[in-house]
Formats: sequence, C-alpha cells, structure tokens
Amino acid sequence: MNDKPIQDYYPDDIAVCFGCGRHNPEGLHIKTYWDGTQGICRFTPLPRHAAYPGIVYGGLIASLIDCHAVGTAVAAAYQHEGRAPGTGPLILFFTARLVVEYLSPAAVGAEMELRARVTDFGARKAVVACSVFSDGAERARGEVTAVRAGEKIGP
Amino acid sequence: MNDKPIQDYYPDDIAVCFGCGRHNPEGLHIKTYWDGTQGICRFTPLPRHAAYPGIVYGGLIASLIDCHAVGTAVAAAYQHEGRAPGTGPLILFFTARLVVEYLSPAAVGAEMELRARVTDFGARKAVVACSVFSDGAERARGEVTAVRAGEKIGP
Repeated sequence: MNDKPIQDYYPDDIAVCFGCGRHNPEGLHIKTYWDGTQGICRFTPLPRHAAYPGIVYGGLIASLIDCHAVGTAVAAAYQHEGRAPGTGPLILFFTARLVVEYLSPAAVGAEMELRARVTDFGARKAVVACSVFSDGAERARGEVTAVRAGEKIGP
Repeated sequence: MNDKPIQDYYPDDIAVCFGCGRHNPEGLHIKTYWDGTQGICRFTPLPRHAAYPGIVYGGLIASLIDCHAVGTAVAAAYQHEGRAPGTGPLILFFTARLVVEYLSPAAVGAEMELRARVTDFGARKAVVACSVFSDGAERARGEVTAVRAGEKIGP
C-alpha cells in the first residue's frame, strides 16, 4: 500500500476540488491509497453529511465514488506507464459518467471503506468499479467512466 | 409555478439533508420548484464547489440531480394523489439509483438550471430524468430511480 494518497501528487494549483482537493478548506478531502491492484479510501461521514437523520446522504456517496474512482484511474495509469506519481507528464482524468446503486442505508459516524478497481483501461479512458462498505455490509456500488485530460485545464 | 419549494414542506425533524435540508447550516440548500409538469432548480456554484479551477465539481452536480429529482418525485406524487404538499400522510422518497452523464464543463459562478420530469411513476417508485443547463448549454444529464419510503425513517 502506498502510504501517500494519489491526491497528494496533484499539482498545488489544481488541488482545489470540493471532493478531494487538499487546498480546498471547505472540501471533503477524499483520499485514495493505491495498493498496486486497487484503490482504497476511508471516510467517516459527519452529522452534516446526512440525508435523513442518521443516514448518509446519497450525494456524498456519489462524491466519494467520483473522486476515489478518478484517483484510482490516475494511480493505475501511472503504474501502467511504469512510473511513479509526480514524475513526468501529469496524468489527470475527468468524469464522463457516474452510476451509483444504493443498496442499503449507511449510518452517519460509521467509517466507510471504498474499494475501487479499473475494469477497462484504454488510451483515453478508464472504467472504474467501486464498492462502498460500512458496518460490515456493502452499502453502495458505483461505476465511473473517466476520460484522460489533455494538458489544458479550464472551463 | 409553486412559489414555495417542495423541500420547505419536509418536516422540521428530518430537514437535515446535506443537499437540500433547510436545517443543515452547512448544506447546499437545493430547492425544487414544481410547475405542475416539471421541477425547476437553480443553483450558482461557488469557488469552493470546483473540481479543477473554474470548473464545477461532478459530485456537486450529482448532488443537485439527486435532491432535485427526489424533490420532483415528491411533488409529482402529491399531485398524483390530488393533494397539496404538507397535507395528509407524508410522502418521502429514497434514492435507489443515480446515473449522471457529464456532457461539457460547467463554469463556477454561472447559474445552473436543472429541469426534472418524472418519466415513470409507480406505486412504490418513480424514475426522474433531469437535465442541467448553464451558459446556454446542457452540461449534464441525469436519471434517478427513487423509491417511496414507509413511515419509519432511520438507519
């Protein structure tokens, strides 16, 4: 397991994401740890992350899956190119499609673990499958289609 | 157009949602206005809602679609039963499935308009299609499958 999350390699000037930007003081600070095969993310939802009292908000789960799947695609792409994150040309992805199935309610305050794997990897895109667990059960399942970004980042 | 958003009819003790709860001081305060045919939501993303600088975060768009589609399902269900929101037994929905396709980047600071319609309506579930516009173009398209909740709300 890499002990530094992939998001810590994102350049300072773009690390502002509401989901995973380390320079967004109001963001969620989602972190993806790559173990060579899959990406692991842990996140403990706070009371403000509820949908109904005590139940985690589906939009938060979608956000966790989005950033974690993209982080997993980035980590897998560096590995695929045989180089360490932070070396050589920057690798970034955009989310093109996100699907989330909510299987059972997740409780606020219980640590969630997300496990993500690249299921399809091409020159320009990656498909990432992600499962969300808490309290010993799978609570949600997601799939993200991520498209590799060119060098220009802007609206 | 109803001049009071459907979320303002949600009971005080459950109106805590990070997306649309009026009693969540740190939430997004997403609001759905029902016009008898479709739900309309307007939201202007702040700089903290970015993915990359200047571009709206996909997880925020997923959150907007989630709460707005559920709000649209609730409003449509009251109309279907021929009664006004806030009267009779409470109608609530949970999100069972969320799909978002990101079509083009939306700019931070530009007002987004979401238009949602129920495309399939049953006794226990509703399917809601939602389009997200900003700066004159469709930026994302979503579909939410929402399941009607029983009276018990809890994890």
